[in-house]
Formats: sequence, C-alpha cells, structure tokens
Amino acid sequence: MRVLLLHPGAMGSSLGAVLMANGHEVRWVGAYRSEATHRRAEADGFTAMDDVATGVKGAEVVLSVCPPEFADDVARQAADAGFTGLFVDANAVSPDSARRVASTVTGAGATMVDGGIIGPPVRGDARNLLYLSGDATPVATVARLFADTPVETVVLDAPIGGASATKMAFAGWTKGSSALLLAVRAMANAEGVTVGLDHAWQTMLPHLPEQLRRAAVGSAPKAWRFEAEMGEIAATMGSVGLPTGFHEAAADVYGRLAEFRDSTDINPDDVVERLTP
Amino acid sequence: MRVLLLHPGAMGSSLGAVLMANGHEVRWVGAYRSEATHRRAEADGFTAMDDVATGVKGAEVVLSVCPPEFADDVARQAADAGFTGLFVDANAVSPDSARRVASTVTGAGATMVDGGIIGPPVRGDARNLLYLSGDATPVATVARLFADTPVETVVLDAPIGGASATKMAFAGWTKGSSALLLAVRAMANAEGVTVGLDHAWQTMLPHLPEQLRRAAVGSAPKAWRFEAEMGEIAATMGSVGLPTGFHEAAADVYGRLAEFRDSTDINPDDVVERLTP
Repeated sequence: MRVLLLHPGAMGSSLGAVLMANGHEVRWVGAYRSEATHRRAEADGFTAMDDVATGVKGAEVVLSVCPPEFADDVARQAADAGFTGLFVDANAVSPDSARRVASTVTGAGATMVDGGIIGPPVRGDARNLLYLSGDATPVATVARLFADTPVETVVLDAPIGGASATKMAFAGWTKGSSALLLAVRAMANAEGVTVGLDHAWQTMLPHLPEQLRRAAVGSAPKAWRFEAEMGEIAATMGSVGLPTGFHEAAADVYGRLAEFRDSTDINPDDVVERLTP
Repeated sequence: MRVLLLHPGAMGSSLGAVLMANGHEVRWVGAYRSEATHRRAEADGFTAMDDVATGVKGAEVVLSVCPPEFADDVARQAADAGFTGLFVDANAVSPDSARRVASTVTGAGATMVDGGIIGPPVRGDARNLLYLSGDATPVATVARLFADTPVETVVLDAPIGGASATKMAFAGWTKGSSALLLAVRAMANAEGVTVGLDHAWQTMLPHLPEQLRRAAVGSAPKAWRFEAEMGEIAATMGSVGLPTGFHEAAADVYGRLAEFRDSTDINPDDVVERLTP
C-alpha cells in the first residue's frame, strides 16, 4: 500500500522503515522539516513529496505520528487536501482529541483509525505495541500493514478514543511517575535533606536511586515533547472527573527540562538541579 | 524519663510502648479520645492524665504524634500549659509547619526537636526510622530515649525543618505515586480500556498489577489521614518553587477514599471504582 507518513520523527521514521521492509511505499513531505529528519527519510528510502496535497494523491493511508500539539494540524492538512482513504492518528492525544481529529478527517470523506503507540522506536532489536480502535474493517487493514513486524498491533474492542485512552493511562503512570520522582528529589535538594532522603531510600526502597537515574536520563532528552502529552493526559483525567493536577504538574516539570532536547551524556544531578529556580 | 504522648493513635501508641519497654514513664490524656485509643492506652500501661496542663507537670518530654492538621493545636496546648521541657514534633508536616510549631513551643520556654517517622507502627517485629533535626543536645536526648529499640533514630545535621522535609520527600514519592497509580487506573476504567491497559502492563510492566493492588489495599484504610499530609507536601513543594499539583491531586484522591477508614478485607476494585463520580 501507499502510506503518507506525517511526520517522520524518531518514532514515525522507525514505523516507516518497518512498513518499507514489509513491502509498502512510504511517502513523506520534507517542507519545513529539520535536517535530521531529511537525513533519516533519505536513509530509510522514503519517497519525498512536494506537499501534503500531492502526497495524499494515490495514497491509501495517512499515518499521523507527531508531537500531540500538531495532531489537529496534520488532520486538517489531510482533510484540506481532500484525503478520502484511511487516516491513522497514532499520537499521544486524549480520547477527546482523537474524536476531534476523527471529525476533521471523516468530514472530508476519510476513515479514521485511532492508534496509540507504547514502547520505543522500532530500530535494531526494539519492539513496540500499536493499540488500534475504531471500526473493525479499517482497523484490520492497519493491523495487516504491520503484520509480522516488530510493531505488535493490538486490536481493541473499542471505538475511536479507546486506543488513545490506553496510551494516556499507560503514559499517565510512566511519565507522570518519573516527573513526580524527579520533583520530590528536587524538593529534598532544595531543602538540603538529600542525606536524609538517601538514608531512607537505601533502608526502605533501595531500588529508587537507580529509578531516579533512569527517570532523569530517560526523560530529559524527550522532555520538550512530554509537556504537551502531559496536557493531553490532564485533559483526559479531567474529562472523567479525576484530578488534573498530577499531569499539570508533570507538564510543568518537563517544561523546565526542555533545554535538554536531544542531549546525550546527561548527568542526572543536572536534571534534578534544573527543576528548582 | 517522663514522656507525655499526644496522642496515642496506631503509630504514637507503638512508640509509647517502646518507651515503656525502655524504662520510661509514658503519660497520655484521655479526654475526647476514642474508645479504641482508651483500650490501647490501658493495654500499653500508659498513665492517664486529666488534661494537658496536668500532664506536662513533671514531664521532661512532650511527644507529639498526631494527624498533621492537629500538630499546631497540640503545640499550642503544651505551650498554654507552660511546658518548658523537650517538645518533639514527629508529625508529617512541612518544614514551614515544623518551624511554626517550634515558634509556638519555644515562645513558652520549651526546646523543640523536629522529628519525621518513616515506616510502620513498631508492633511485633516491625521497625521504623525516626529522623531527628535541631540543636545537637536535645536531639541526642531524644535519640537516647529510643536507644536499642525497633525505632531507629537517625540524627540529621540539619536545623528544625530538616527531619520534616525528609519525611515530606519520602512520603511525597510513596503516597504520591500510589495516588497517581490509583488515579490512572480509575481513568482507564472510566474510559472502558482496562483490557488495553492490562495488556500493556503485562507486556511492558508486569509488576504493576500487584503494585496497584498494594496501593489500594495499603492506602485506603489510612486515606482519611493522608489528605492533610498531601496538603503539607504540596505546601513544601510550593515553598521551593516546585509544582504543587502532584500532591494537591493526591489529596483529592485520598479524600475520595476517606470512607474506607479502618476497613479490613478491602477489594482493590472497589477502591479504584470509588475514585470516579
């Protein structure tokens, strides 16, 4: 099948490479994309298209994989280009956002499939999970695209919004708890009681220092795009009458770490230090 | 030494029993206390005093162990009774609250020691940690009270507020993360995607279902007194410029679980269910 991938970041390009290896054509649109994205897309052998309007012509699938704050834009661009095929929103957005995207693309004649990705980009030996929800037939088509690849598709018996809610709940814990751990550590630093906290952790929760280290090193380079994701999770919590504060606070924490974007060789102490003014 | 214990709940009475076993006299004041507290105090052999004014007469130490929202009252009562000995605030309060308590009791001529308890009541084989901060001499006196007991005292090189901050940071993670885990699970329930979340947890984080069960069963019976503690932690976070939302949300979560007070035989599903309106 012909798949227009919008836009091939670290995660999206890895999915595109998997689709190429599975015999599909993967298109992308290079305008306004970074140098790194251009290099990746060329290396992966994606077909460069001039713009979205050209890209959707003859494409059966649009696969939207982007930071959550751009999910609506991508859907709007596909709809404006008159796309009438299968639109897969695989972004970390709230169920309400997924339904809004669905409304945009189906309004122009496309069919929506809701997707939620859990796990790392599928490069090397890495595998991840792609949750799918929506009508059975288009969902099955998307699942077939990734058959026998490191992307394990999981079909949920749920409408549009179900795959997104699964992602929100999963990331609500993983990224929410990492932000919480970094923040309480920053508080202990600011209060000058790291000696006491270290003693308590070593005595009662000896795994926590390593968990803190992983939270710092794992989150900081991606924090720039976690802020909006935490906003989507907060909205999801609020929409079912639960407190929004956990993830509003997590958004604040990740916002303070945005400057570590794409950093390597990160010192965990620097990350914690960065959280207090 | 003669110790006035205000007030012997589950934690406080276990400390009192340890002090009795260590050869100290433990006094308490029964007015306005529950039937269960009276039974416990009699069983532990504490000396009943008519009121705080009588209780402080001849007492060298007042040990304040109570829900955090009553810490100021207890300090005020000791001060009003003219207590001039060693006042130990071992409550889960913010460093600012600990300093306010110190100001109250030192204003009346007493000496403050800041304490923070981490771990369960010391009954049976249980042990816990009592962090202490403040001036070295009174801190050492308090540490000697508990020498060679299941209460392991840890003297911090920190002023009043340091022991409290240690407790806030430790509980900020343990109780904050339990509330977060319960809340994201409640969100998945409300969104009808527990099947998806269970799949993702089993695949990526297989320890989480058991962690959720422990969070529910462990927190619910004590949630009634966690709400105020979360407020103290939120205040501590805010006082050093960190987001208060994690623990405001946790206070909200625990507030919704207050009705499980002292329940036994708790069904974790009921706890999660209780979180959504």
